[in-house]
Amino acid sequence: MIRTIKELRCWSRRQHNAQKRIGLVPTMGALHEGHLSLVQAANQCCEATLVSIFVNPAQFGVHEDFHQYPRPLENDLRLLQTAGSPEVFVPEITEMYPAGFDASVHIGGVTQPFEGVFRPTHFDGVTTVVLKLFLASEADLAFFGQKDFQQVCVIRKMVMDLNIPVEIVVCPTVREPDGLAMSSRNRYLTETQRSQTVVLSQSLTLAEKMIIDEKIRDVETIRQKIRSKIETAPDIKIDYIAIAHPKTLYELTTIDSEVVILIAAKIGTTRLIDNILISVVDN
Amino acid sequence: MIRTIKELRCWSRRQHNAQKRIGLVPTMGALHEGHLSLVQAANQCCEATLVSIFVNPAQFGVHEDFHQYPRPLENDLRLLQTAGSPEVFVPEITEMYPAGFDASVHIGGVTQPFEGVFRPTHFDGVTTVVLKLFLASEADLAFFGQKDFQQVCVIRKMVMDLNIPVEIVVCPTVREPDGLAMSSRNRYLTETQRSQTVVLSQSLTLAEKMIIDEKIRDVETIRQKIRSKIETAPDIKIDYIAIAHPKTLYELTTIDSEVVILIAAKIGTTRLIDNILISVVDN
Repeated sequence: MIRTIKELRCWSRRQHNAQKRIGLVPTMGALHEGHLSLVQAANQCCEATLVSIFVNPAQFGVHEDFHQYPRPLENDLRLLQTAGSPEVFVPEITEMYPAGFDASVHIGGVTQPFEGVFRPTHFDGVTTVVLKLFLASEADLAFFGQKDFQQVCVIRKMVMDLNIPVEIVVCPTVREPDGLAMSSRNRYLTETQRSQTVVLSQSLTLAEKMIIDEKIRDVETIRQKIRSKIETAPDIKIDYIAIAHPKTLYELTTIDSEVVILIAAKIGTTRLIDNILISVVDN
Repeated sequence: MIRTIKELRCWSRRQHNAQKRIGLVPTMGALHEGHLSLVQAANQCCEATLVSIFVNPAQFGVHEDFHQYPRPLENDLRLLQTAGSPEVFVPEITEMYPAGFDASVHIGGVTQPFEGVFRPTHFDGVTTVVLKLFLASEADLAFFGQKDFQQVCVIRKMVMDLNIPVEIVVCPTVREPDGLAMSSRNRYLTETQRSQTVVLSQSLTLAEKMIIDEKIRDVETIRQKIRSKIETAPDIKIDYIAIAHPKTLYELTTIDSEVVILIAAKIGTTRLIDNILISVVDN
């Protein structure tokens, strides 16, 4: 287990000197099958896989769950042993943000809508730490889950705008048997809450059916259907239902080619997000 | 001559595949002996030298000299031929900032005083473009002149805070025979103005004498001496005379070990800066 950036750089240089490509899987720990699928993808693409585990304070808002966020490190390390025993980087907060640290990376545009409205400081925290992880690890490829769709857009934009020499690989959302997108935050849910959350993914497959099978193209009709479905769960409060272009994240008024539907909702104090990417082929 | 980031990355990968270390000299063109000394330093340390020539709009304030800034590209290329013919990267503005570009890197602390007061958007422009150049070129070392002392502090801080895998090398200020620090902006000066500018470097060597020979330790005494010297030039208006710690740029009240004296002044519409680094060994 690597604890410092200096050790990390030594490790990375050794991999590169041995002509090995480094695949980075940045995580906040509390690993689930979604994370493990990213590790497997990295193992397949790269000769050296690195998993970082760092609960990044900079990406949590003041009233968010930073202190409460689960940190089951021993269990995480055990899970990673079952996933090919990648190298693991687990820095202390003071290693990533030493005294006097005063840098931030801001990406405009795709950071502004949706999550940006509800979590105004979130993406600056994400881009800053992800850039640090990219540069400290000198990763050749980095693996992210589609579950955090907007985050992936933001990171892709950062990579492009700052000319970062890393290739971003996006892996499909891994879901529970009933469809709930896997998330470290799912463990906050009570049994009653957990049973209600199924409407989130169901609302998205319902929307997909409307678009693909029923050829509905009007976004308000689709949004209303998603809303009605989610509102069948008594304790879920919707933050947003966004129907947008997958690259720019501009909201659409009518669906023509590619579309992403992003939803965010709270149940109790737990905030959940999900999304679906849909390609429309009209003749 | 390399014109695009894509070509640049191909060139860099070729150098690294051939086990050559890349030394980057970022410039805005209008090259003088100061720049050429950086190229020579890069030639000595690295197997592959890259000079970038890019007048970066993002680091100019709205009322500054972006449009007026000299762009004698042919002469620059000729000068570089006399300095070992390094590879040259000359991107268009749209190559560095394509439509939709929306990223910025902000460094706090050392960006705030001195130049930061007079040029509030300057350092964000510098750090963003320098990070892009570092990452696009995958430079192993990068060479800067001590003339831009605060810029060097800012870039060192960025490299540290963002874990950028590049080593910063700082080369001494190159001066005209009368002591004026070489600068592309010196060519703006009329003959009368040019003859007055000698007081800038003279005021710094005067301060050095006070500190080293006369062992004066009170900064206000030193600052007053510098001010009086500069004010002998009728057309020079002082922006600041700062006596500070060379790492933190905190202003000192008394001089103990290391000190940097930074001055900025305007003559007509031309703004000039200079500095001197002094090590005090008291017993």
